[in-house]
Parts: sequence; structure tokens; C-alpha cells
Amino acid sequence: MPRIVDHEQRRKDIARVVSALVLKGGAEAVTIRAVAQACGFSTAVVCHYFASKHAMLAYTQRLAWQRGLARITAAGAAGAPLEACLAHALPDTPAGWEDWHCWMAFWGQAPETDGIEADWRESIAVSNAVFVDLVRRAQAQGAFDPEEDPSEAATGIQIMLNGIASLVAQGRGEWPAERQRAVLRRQLRRLGYRPAE
Amino acid sequence: MPRIVDHEQRRKDIARVVSALVLKGGAEAVTIRAVAQACGFSTAVVCHYFASKHAMLAYTQRLAWQRGLARITAAGAAGAPLEACLAHALPDTPAGWEDWHCWMAFWGQAPETDGIEADWRESIAVSNAVFVDLVRRAQAQGAFDPEEDPSEAATGIQIMLNGIASLVAQGRGEWPAERQRAVLRRQLRRLGYRPAE
Repeated sequence: MPRIVDHEQRRKDIARVVSALVLKGGAEAVTIRAVAQACGFSTAVVCHYFASKHAMLAYTQRLAWQRGLARITAAGAAGAPLEACLAHALPDTPAGWEDWHCWMAFWGQAPETDGIEADWRESIAVSNAVFVDLVRRAQAQGAFDPEEDPSEAATGIQIMLNGIASLVAQGRGEWPAERQRAVLRRQLRRLGYRPAE
Repeated sequence: MPRIVDHEQRRKDIARVVSALVLKGGAEAVTIRAVAQACGFSTAVVCHYFASKHAMLAYTQRLAWQRGLARITAAGAAGAPLEACLAHALPDTPAGWEDWHCWMAFWGQAPETDGIEADWRESIAVSNAVFVDLVRRAQAQGAFDPEEDPSEAATGIQIMLNGIASLVAQGRGEWPAERQRAVLRRQLRRLGYRPAE
């Protein structure tokens, strides 16, 4: 191990291990000791990077939603239609599914957990802001009903994506990628999406 | 304690304790030992009623969704409009919120957990069947677009309810009951609901 290690990169490496532990054993599989063992570090090293189990979980799910949002905003910046942007949020790949599973394990944490309500609120608010931008852009391009309030539409998009993912996560075999995309398309039109045919 | 205790009632009593433990400490707070302590039983007694931690969690969330569905179907049988029936599923009371939190903790379990995929699939399939019935009834009464496929509409309702609850659970302060009901009404109309004015 090089003596000088980028702090943030090390946190990301640990987060990858945390995410895999959650997928395999739920949030309860995440302990400082289990993470240290899986990383090949001492618990003291892990504690240097994260103050608590909650901090590890919070950081891991934050990376997961940042990854998802980055894919969406990159597609938007490249001029992709709203539907194609949002398709990046679907759990239709093993990686996407792992990210969603990580979020759901985080949703399932106790509300009394220190700091969790602030983390929950932040991830919802940041996602909402991204969706508001995408809706505004679609409206400017004539691809979304101009009568719809962008903020309400963004909340509708969050409800739709979380709802779809909740069903997919619990019945992956019944939700091949094509079905996920078809439902996304249909529900998005109901929210006001008017794609160019 | 009477010598003859109704087996199912005892399981329900234990489930109530499990639900409270989940709310306070997440699924990981649920151990045979913690449940026994909270119930005032020995671990041997708890093990008599449940073979494992997973069995306790699965039973507890099953009671939670059965309670929710029973409220919905009772309202439907009493002739309530679709919107009023589905409002019973919203996490707009402390009890409703505890039920939803229990489901989310269950969604966040590892997919590798023994038997969990069958439990997930069952709760989704049973809820879906209830919603199909309600949509068909609403269509027969002229209160739902007859062009909509009841099965697709039922999936749309599940996406909507799970999605709304996912946002409420993570930002309860921003989702008073009136906002939940207003969003339910708006999204339900988008799915094809046509209430008598």
C-alpha cells in the first residue's frame, strides 16, 4: 500500500465494499469489523475514514445516487430526450440494481438513526432539482406539457422512479429491461411528456 | 399468563413488538434475543413461534400489508370511491407510517435471504389483485377510463403508492396528510380515474 493514498479514493474503495455487503446481507451486514475484513484493513484504518457504520452507509448511498444522477445529467447535457435521460435511473443492469438495493437498504434504516433524516432529505432535494431542470428543458423544447408545474412534475418523476424500482427490486425476474422501459414511457406521458414522434 | 394461549394471537403480539423494534432500530434491531426481552419471554418461547429472524420479519410485514389491504377492501365493499379506498394506504397516521416503515425495512433486506423473494412476490401479487378488482369496479361505475387495462392500472397504482410512501418516509415533515392526498388525487387521475364531480 503506497504511503500516500488519496483520502477520497480510499473512501470510495471502502464504499464499494459496503455496497457489496449490503447486497449480500442487508444493512445489518455492514459493521466496521466486516468492512475492515473485506477490505483487508484493520478496523482502526476503517475508523480513520468513517466515524461510524451510519457514516459508511450514508456515504455509500450518496455515491450511488450521485452516480445515477450523473448518468442522467450527462445524457441531458448531450441532448438526449427526457425519457432516455430517466431510463438511466432504471434498475435494468446489475450495477443499477445494486445501486437501488443500496438506496432501499438506506430507506429501511430507522428514522431515529443519527443524521439520517438530513441525509434522506438531501438526496430527495438534489434529485428533485435535477428533474426540475430536465422538465424545464423539455418544456422549452416543446416535449413536455407547458401547463405542468416543473416542481410538481419532478415530484411525479421521483414517485414514478422510486415506485418502479420498488417493484423491480422485489420481483426482478418479472421486470426485464423492456418492461421497465415501457412502463417508464407510459407513466412519463401521463405526467405530461410529449415526445416528438 | 394463561396456560392455553391462542397460537396465532401470540404470533401477532410478537409481531407488534417486532414492528416497534424495526421502527426504532431498523431490521437489524430484530434478533430473537431482543424480541424475547421486549416481550418478556425466554428465547425458547420466541423460537416456538418463529423459526428465525427472517420468519418474524416476514410475518410482521405480512400483517402490516394485510391490515392495509383490509382497510382498502373494506372501504371498497362499503362503496367508497377508488380515491377514498386508496387513501387508506397513505402513511398519513403514526400507525400507517409504522406499517410503511416496516415494509421498507423488508424491501431493504438482502435478496439472498432465504425465502425473501417468494415473500416479496406474494405481497406484490396479492396487492395487485386487490387493485385490479377496485379498478374493474370503478370502470363498471364509470369512474375509471374503460380503455385502461385493469392490470396495468393496478401496477400504476402500486408504483404510485410505493413512490409516494418512499418520499413521505424520508421527509415526513414535508408531507402532511393534505399533501399526500392531493398528490394521490392528481396521480390517480393521470392513471385514468374519472370521479363523479
